[in-house]
Amino acid sequence: MDTMDFSFTRQAAAFLIVCSCLCVSAEVSTPAGVTLLPPVQPENGPQSYPNAKKSNLPVFTINYSRIQIPFEITLWMLLASFAKVGFHVYHKITIWVPESCLLISIGLIVGGIMYSVHEEPPAVLSNSVFFLYILPPMVLESGYFMPTRPFFENIGTVFWFAVVGTLWNSIGIGISLFGICQIEAFGVQDINLQENLLFASIISAVDPVAVLTVFEDVSVNEQLYIVVFGECLFNDAVTVVLYNMFSFVAEMPVVEPVDVFLGMARFLVVGLGGMGFGILFGFVASFTTRFTSKVREIEPLFIFMYSYLAYLVAELFAISSIMAIVCCALTMKYYVEENVSQRSCTTIRHVVKMLSSISETVIFFFLGVVTITTEHEWNWGYLLFTLLFAFIWRSLGVLVLIPIINPFRTIPLNLKDQFGLAYGGLRGAISFALAFTLPESIVRKHLFVTATIAVILFTVFLQGISIRPLIELINVRRTNRKEDLINVEIHRRMMEHTMTGIEDICGQWSHFYWKDKFMKFNNRFLRRILIRDSRPESGIVALYKKLELQNAMEILDSVSGDIREERDLNNMHNILSKNMYSIRQRVR
Amino acid sequence: MDTMDFSFTRQAAAFLIVCSCLCVSAEVSTPAGVTLLPPVQPENGPQSYPNAKKSNLPVFTINYSRIQIPFEITLWMLLASFAKVGFHVYHKITIWVPESCLLISIGLIVGGIMYSVHEEPPAVLSNSVFFLYILPPMVLESGYFMPTRPFFENIGTVFWFAVVGTLWNSIGIGISLFGICQIEAFGVQDINLQENLLFASIISAVDPVAVLTVFEDVSVNEQLYIVVFGECLFNDAVTVVLYNMFSFVAEMPVVEPVDVFLGMARFLVVGLGGMGFGILFGFVASFTTRFTSKVREIEPLFIFMYSYLAYLVAELFAISSIMAIVCCALTMKYYVEENVSQRSCTTIRHVVKMLSSISETVIFFFLGVVTITTEHEWNWGYLLFTLLFAFIWRSLGVLVLIPIINPFRTIPLNLKDQFGLAYGGLRGAISFALAFTLPESIVRKHLFVTATIAVILFTVFLQGISIRPLIELINVRRTNRKEDLINVEIHRRMMEHTMTGIEDICGQWSHFYWKDKFMKFNNRFLRRILIRDSRPESGIVALYKKLELQNAMEILDSVSGDIREERDLNNMHNILSKNMYSIRQRVR
Repeated sequence: MDTMDFSFTRQAAAFLIVCSCLCVSAEVSTPAGVTLLPPVQPENGPQSYPNAKKSNLPVFTINYSRIQIPFEITLWMLLASFAKVGFHVYHKITIWVPESCLLISIGLIVGGIMYSVHEEPPAVLSNSVFFLYILPPMVLESGYFMPTRPFFENIGTVFWFAVVGTLWNSIGIGISLFGICQIEAFGVQDINLQENLLFASIISAVDPVAVLTVFEDVSVNEQLYIVVFGECLFNDAVTVVLYNMFSFVAEMPVVEPVDVFLGMARFLVVGLGGMGFGILFGFVASFTTRFTSKVREIEPLFIFMYSYLAYLVAELFAISSIMAIVCCALTMKYYVEENVSQRSCTTIRHVVKMLSSISETVIFFFLGVVTITTEHEWNWGYLLFTLLFAFIWRSLGVLVLIPIINPFRTIPLNLKDQFGLAYGGLRGAISFALAFTLPESIVRKHLFVTATIAVILFTVFLQGISIRPLIELINVRRTNRKEDLINVEIHRRMMEHTMTGIEDICGQWSHFYWKDKFMKFNNRFLRRILIRDSRPESGIVALYKKLELQNAMEILDSVSGDIREERDLNNMHNILSKNMYSIRQRVR
Repeated sequence: MDTMDFSFTRQAAAFLIVCSCLCVSAEVSTPAGVTLLPPVQPENGPQSYPNAKKSNLPVFTINYSRIQIPFEITLWMLLASFAKVGFHVYHKITIWVPESCLLISIGLIVGGIMYSVHEEPPAVLSNSVFFLYILPPMVLESGYFMPTRPFFENIGTVFWFAVVGTLWNSIGIGISLFGICQIEAFGVQDINLQENLLFASIISAVDPVAVLTVFEDVSVNEQLYIVVFGECLFNDAVTVVLYNMFSFVAEMPVVEPVDVFLGMARFLVVGLGGMGFGILFGFVASFTTRFTSKVREIEPLFIFMYSYLAYLVAELFAISSIMAIVCCALTMKYYVEENVSQRSCTTIRHVVKMLSSISETVIFFFLGVVTITTEHEWNWGYLLFTLLFAFIWRSLGVLVLIPIINPFRTIPLNLKDQFGLAYGGLRGAISFALAFTLPESIVRKHLFVTATIAVILFTVFLQGISIRPLIELINVRRTNRKEDLINVEIHRRMMEHTMTGIEDICGQWSHFYWKDKFMKFNNRFLRRILIRDSRPESGIVALYKKLELQNAMEILDSVSGDIREERDLNNMHNILSKNMYSIRQRVR
């Protein structure tokens, strides 16, 4: 009980210290300290009410150990959220400095405080916590909000880049670093090829968070956006396979040729298996929501539970859980959103965004904390060459791989796009989590952790901060994100039908043909099975409903805005009477 | 690893068995069984791919222990949700049989299956799991959706009933049962007064779930509804105090008079402390949402985290956590909903409902499961008299307590309302959880558990099923739930102002006076501090915005409904062009 209370005091103290760091005025921490701490210190157990004897009924008790776990999780989440809110309120710098940089900085400060009071950081970054609880929401969000049409139009490039690009990076960096290890001056001759490859696979995972925000704000062209998005999403799968493979290989005395083939087989099992499970769970989820019209309040829960189950089952069979949850989200999104109510739909979208946002926040925050509190092994040579090779192989990869894929693309990626792709190769949470879960049998684990953190901090801070000015400077092709109009949709669909016809005549089948085939199959079978009211719905009606919803929300916001602006009661009266009348009329 | 796999198989088997019970066709279970089970059985460890030697790279691995906890939780939740969806789809009986009865029945079946395969039920009903994870969402929902105006207008009756009524029940039942224990024929002379009182306090907690659904459907008058609602919500606090007090007293050799006073002191500390913490956290939550306009996606999270923190802190100090979370929800709701965006607001409401719904589902389901799998001690005499006394003392309490409070009420509760109150005294999850957490030092624990389950099943099934016909038969005063109109709101406010003036003149201060005082204080201080755009807002504008939102949703639903009904493309074209035009015009 004593240690528990002490731990609680330390938690509360750390929490309050950080609060006071975050708040501009120091006054906040003092009254809070007065409120929180004193009840803890005078008490030593559940029955220590000062006026009561040991045997009497306690009027005031305390029991920290019982609520410790949920309490501390909530507290840390709250702290991370405060940080997020904090620099949106007090500084307007989030436009120029990515949020991830700021979160890491706050994390560094908190880590410094914790280090100085010798407080152990919570085990948030342990393998299972990260992969079972923090990663799924982030990936679910990416999958759920993936722009479907551009993704399928660029699917070749995405997979080319995610699979071959990541392999290129891992092997390139690994072999180069192995070369460096042969130079005696650096004192790292004991790192063998397998370990170098393992380390290289860790730092090859590109993190989307910072880059995508910038790309969205600058509104770069759709092709570049979706390639970076898709690469980030699917290279995780490749990275995890490579990581598992190399960490298995690193412990083997000799690598036989058969292992290379087994590695490839494993790669297929992992990738296709994940995809299969994802699609299966997506269909089951869609099918389930057919029957939820009477229990609207738990509809969103099904979405979360099925995606999570897809992820967990994939984890169980050690196949790509990221692939599984992304495919599940992609599959079910389309059907589920037609089955569930409007409110459920809003809730699903908002909660997915919310969970992913808090996961991201927490992970970057802890990245900062753990950077300080973990053990480091410093080796200038190895670190610098890691940074160098990570950058060089990424750039080389883009320069080599893009010209190979460009002839197959309708709109080829130009040199500026390639710069965006190469420079957008920020490393993040996945690398970090993988580095931490390296087996202890690897002698130089601490060096690898240090190098990974160095690569992450270098790319997130330097590239993350400079990418916006550079993109704007070299003037990367933009997209004019205009709203979808009914007319645009009609013409697009007509063009697609025409293209399909032409392709059919000249015997060349591209994605138009397959899309047409899939749509027919979809309307004939899938929609009938998965959607409650299964009349085939044209894209126009779907678009119309989307616009309708958007308009309803706009009406709401504009009215509420109007009212807030009007200080005059007369004007308000006018608005009230006019709007009420017209809206009432519309509803009948 | 072996036991893990076995456990997984059993879980999967149990799950599948239940699935097949739920689904009408037996075909569902066979293909699923084929898909799920075989990969598990041939594997004995992570490296047992048949074609690979021990040292080679595994192409296919399995690791159940890693994902066990989240996997099983998700699976059980999914199962409970299936049950809920199931009887809404296949049977239309939820109108006549409350959902809680059906869930318990399903739970009984699953429990029977688990009992027959000697499977241990998951530890969902352990003290900490129930009180830390399952109860908070349920109470948060009650607090968040509490109708504020009727509640404060009936606050006297609610607290009179929650506090005095619960005390009356506990002491009455306890002493009567102690009397029964003196009769030698029943063989329960070893149960002393303290233990009887402890048991009585457990079965005095009234559960709102089943009754409120019926009351809502039948739309009984607002007074009756809110009294039952409030009683259920706040008597939990009283019950928990009594429970803690009696379970402490039950282990004491002698009870001194000072303990009675300490008990009262504790009661005040628990109640007022919980209220204080709740209001404090509510204000902090409201204050925080002032600053979240840039991070809309995590707004709902703040609401959940603060309410949960209020609950946990109250648990920490062993004061009424239910009181804390209810007061927190009541306090912040008003301010938070003005600060957050419309989408966040929808999400908060939906998620609160969703979490509470799934908690309720899970708890009733497990009530059924545990009824079968737990150890029982059967004693006809004690059980029957418990049922009898529970009913008699509830009825007596209503008959005695209502006439005392009626003179102070504007609208007195008539005899029919009293019948509704007395008959609506269903027992539920709280009693169940408390019975399970009885200390092992109580010799007759199993008897108490059995008796508690008997009372719950008796009231939930018998009273729960018969209350709707009875309420309709005796024709309890109904309310005509018409929609709020601007006109009604204007007149209500005018009447309130007039009443306040009249009361001020004649020197008699009722709740109108206090409401006026509070509204002034609120507009002058609280709103300025807690709301971003703090212009005092009249109730009319608030109501207008509410109606506006409602209308926007109705537009959406009606349009979507129209389109679904129209099979004719011409008609659809008309709708599209007309609606698009008028909506575009409205938005400008």
